[in-house]
Amino acid sequence: MINQMYLERTKNKNIIREFSEYATGRGKEIGYENVFDYSLGNPSVPAPKSFTDAVIDMYKKEDPMKIHGYSPTLGLPEVREIIADSLKRRFSISYMADHIFPVSGAAGAIAHAVRAVTKPGDTVITFAPFFPEYVPYIEDAGVNLSVVPASLPDFQINFEALERLLDENVQAVLINSPNNPSGTVYSEETLRELSRILNTAQDRFSHEIYLISDEPYREIVFDGKKCPYPASYYFNTLTCYSFSKALSLPGERIGYIAVNPGALHAKELTVMFGQISRGIGHNCPSSTMQRGVAAVIDETSDLSVYETNMNILYDALVEMGFEVQRPGGTFYIFPKCLEDDAMSFCKKALEYDLILVPSDNFGVSGYFRMAYCIDTEKVKRSLPVLKKFAESYA
Amino acid sequence: MINQMYLERTKNKNIIREFSEYATGRGKEIGYENVFDYSLGNPSVPAPKSFTDAVIDMYKKEDPMKIHGYSPTLGLPEVREIIADSLKRRFSISYMADHIFPVSGAAGAIAHAVRAVTKPGDTVITFAPFFPEYVPYIEDAGVNLSVVPASLPDFQINFEALERLLDENVQAVLINSPNNPSGTVYSEETLRELSRILNTAQDRFSHEIYLISDEPYREIVFDGKKCPYPASYYFNTLTCYSFSKALSLPGERIGYIAVNPGALHAKELTVMFGQISRGIGHNCPSSTMQRGVAAVIDETSDLSVYETNMNILYDALVEMGFEVQRPGGTFYIFPKCLEDDAMSFCKKALEYDLILVPSDNFGVSGYFRMAYCIDTEKVKRSLPVLKKFAESYA
Repeated sequence: MINQMYLERTKNKNIIREFSEYATGRGKEIGYENVFDYSLGNPSVPAPKSFTDAVIDMYKKEDPMKIHGYSPTLGLPEVREIIADSLKRRFSISYMADHIFPVSGAAGAIAHAVRAVTKPGDTVITFAPFFPEYVPYIEDAGVNLSVVPASLPDFQINFEALERLLDENVQAVLINSPNNPSGTVYSEETLRELSRILNTAQDRFSHEIYLISDEPYREIVFDGKKCPYPASYYFNTLTCYSFSKALSLPGERIGYIAVNPGALHAKELTVMFGQISRGIGHNCPSSTMQRGVAAVIDETSDLSVYETNMNILYDALVEMGFEVQRPGGTFYIFPKCLEDDAMSFCKKALEYDLILVPSDNFGVSGYFRMAYCIDTEKVKRSLPVLKKFAESYA
Repeated sequence: MINQMYLERTKNKNIIREFSEYATGRGKEIGYENVFDYSLGNPSVPAPKSFTDAVIDMYKKEDPMKIHGYSPTLGLPEVREIIADSLKRRFSISYMADHIFPVSGAAGAIAHAVRAVTKPGDTVITFAPFFPEYVPYIEDAGVNLSVVPASLPDFQINFEALERLLDENVQAVLINSPNNPSGTVYSEETLRELSRILNTAQDRFSHEIYLISDEPYREIVFDGKKCPYPASYYFNTLTCYSFSKALSLPGERIGYIAVNPGALHAKELTVMFGQISRGIGHNCPSSTMQRGVAAVIDETSDLSVYETNMNILYDALVEMGFEVQRPGGTFYIFPKCLEDDAMSFCKKALEYDLILVPSDNFGVSGYFRMAYCIDTEKVKRSLPVLKKFAESYA
C-alpha cells in the first residue's frame, strides 16, 4: 500500500507556488511583462562568466573519467579544502577540509544537519518569520518544530519567548540571517545574546544544543556591510550554505555544511553526514558542479540589482504609508498588510496584477513578502500600481 | 546530543572500500599497475564525446539563468518527456512525462521508491546476492529488509524461499537485473514467474506489492542480447535507473524513477516522490546534468571492454577450476571461493596483490566478486597470478 502520509501531503497547497502559477497563467493572458510578479525567490542575474568559463574549460581539458568519477562519500577532498580555506580567510575560523561536507544546496544541508544532531522525538527551535520548507526538513526527521514568535518590528530575536521554549528536548536552534522572508540581518548583539542563552541552556540541560545556521543569502547584504557570521559567536554551529543565490545556480543543488572546528563533536559530525547520505540516497552533489563552484569560490554574480531594487521599493512603500522594516540583505521585503488578513490582502492585490505572497506560511500573520529579484524597470513600473492598490485601503 | 545511531554507524567497516583502500595504499608501495585491483565498480571507459560536446554547447549557447534555474519539484518537464519517449520507444510501454521522476542516481531512486510504497514497520524483500547499500536505503526508511537466499548455481530466483517469506507485511520486492555482484540477467521465465507469484500475493493480502527494479546495468548485457525489462511483466513496477554506468557519469548522481503507467497508483506516485524529496532536501538532480543526459538519451559509452574482459576472465577461471556462473551482463563476476571462508580466501589473495571482494556483505558466503571494469591488458596480466593463487589450494 502506498504511503498515506506522503499521499496526504500531495494534497496540501504550496501558497508561494500557487501565487507563482497564477502569475504565469495571468502572464499568458495579458503578457508576462504586465504581471508584477513578486512571488518567487529565483535569482534574476546570471551566473558569473568566470563560472561558465571554468566549467567549459574543465569539460574541454580534463579527463572525463576524472571529472565524472565517483566522489568519496564525504565529497571531493580538493573541493572540501578550497571551501575550508575560503571560510578560514573570510571568517578567521580554522576550518580544515575535514569540517566541510558538500551537499545538495541549503535544503540538503539542513536536512543532514538536523538528522545528525537530533533523534526522533527531539525538538528544534526556529524563529518566525521562517522559510516554510523548514517544516518538512525537520518533521521528516521525526523531530518537532517549535517556533519562537517574531520580534516586532525589527525581526531580530524575541529572547524572552526563546527562553520560555528552551527545554531539555531542544537539541538544535535553526536561524536564517539574512532572513527569508524579512530581509533582516542578525546584528552582532543578537548573535552574542543568542550565544549566551544557548551556552547557559547547554549547561543547564547537560547536553549540546547545536546552532544550525542557514546562510544562502550571506553574500547579499546591503549598504556595504558584512553579515555577522553566526559560527564566530557560538562553537556548536553547523553552517548550512548554498551557492544558489550568490552564484545564481539554484537548479544545480550545490552547497555545503561547515562544522565549526570548535564544536564538541567536530570530528564525528562530517563522517555522520556521510552515513545519513547513504540512507537517503543522496551520495554527494554532482562532481563537476563541486569542481565548478570551487573554481570561483570567492566570486559572486553581480548582485547589485537587488540593493537597487530594495532601495526603490523600500522608499516607495514607506511613502505609501506601509509599515515596513528596511531589509539588511536578501532579495525580499516584508511589509505589513493594510488589513489583518494577509491572504485576503494578497488576493485583492491580484486584481491589480500584483503578485504578493501572504505571510501566514512564514509563521506570522498580517504581512506579505515581495521577492524583488526581478528587473529594476519592472519594479519601477509596479510602483504606481502598488500605490493605487494601497489607496484602495484609504 | 548528536545522533547515536549514525555515530555508531561511522564505526562500521565498509568491506569493499577497505579492500579498495588497501589496493590504493599497496599501489603506492609497488606501483598501482602491479596491483590487480578488482575491488570497485567504477566505470573504466569515458563518457561519450557527444555528452561532453552537448554540455559545452549548452554552456556556450544557452542563457545561464535558464540552464541553472530551479527545476520544478518533479524535474524539468522537457527532460521527463525525453526520458518517457525513450522508454516508450525501447520497451513499448506508454510512459508519459508524468511517470518520470529525475533523481540523484539509482541510490536516490531506490530511497524514494521505498519510502513511497512502504511505511515504517513494513517489509521489503530482496534476493541474495544483493548490493550491500540496499541495507541503509531500506532500514533508514524504518522498513525491515527480508532476504531470499540465493538460487544456486544460476542466481536466478529461489521461488520456494520467496513464497515462504511473502507475508502481509511485504509491501515491495527489490530486484537488480543485471545483478551486482553476480552479473546474472533475470530470464523472461524468471520475471514471468515472479509476476505470477506477486500477483497472487497481492490478491491474497488485498494490497499492492510493488516491484522496485534497480537497473543501473541495463545497458551492459553480453552476447548481443537485451535485458528483459521487468516492468513489461508486472504492472506495479517502479524502475530505478542511473546513467552512472551506461554514460560513465557515476559522480554526477543522475538517474530517474519510471512509474509503470499500469501501476495502480501511477498518477499519485511521482507527485509523492516530490514530497519525499522535500523532507530529505534532495530537490532534483543538477539542472544542467538533467539536460545533459537528455541530450544523449539513447547513447552509451563504448561498453564493449566489459564483455571482452568478462570473456577472458570467465574462460580463465573455468580453466583454473573455479565454479563460476557466466555473467549475462554488468562488469562483475562472482566465482565460488576455493575455501569456505570468503574473507580468509580474499585476504590470502592479497599476498598475490589480487584484490578480490568477499561475498559475505552481498548476503551469501563462500564467493568473491571481481569488478572487471579495468584495462584488458591488466586483466590479462592478472591471469598467471590468479592461476598461481588457485594452485596454492591444490
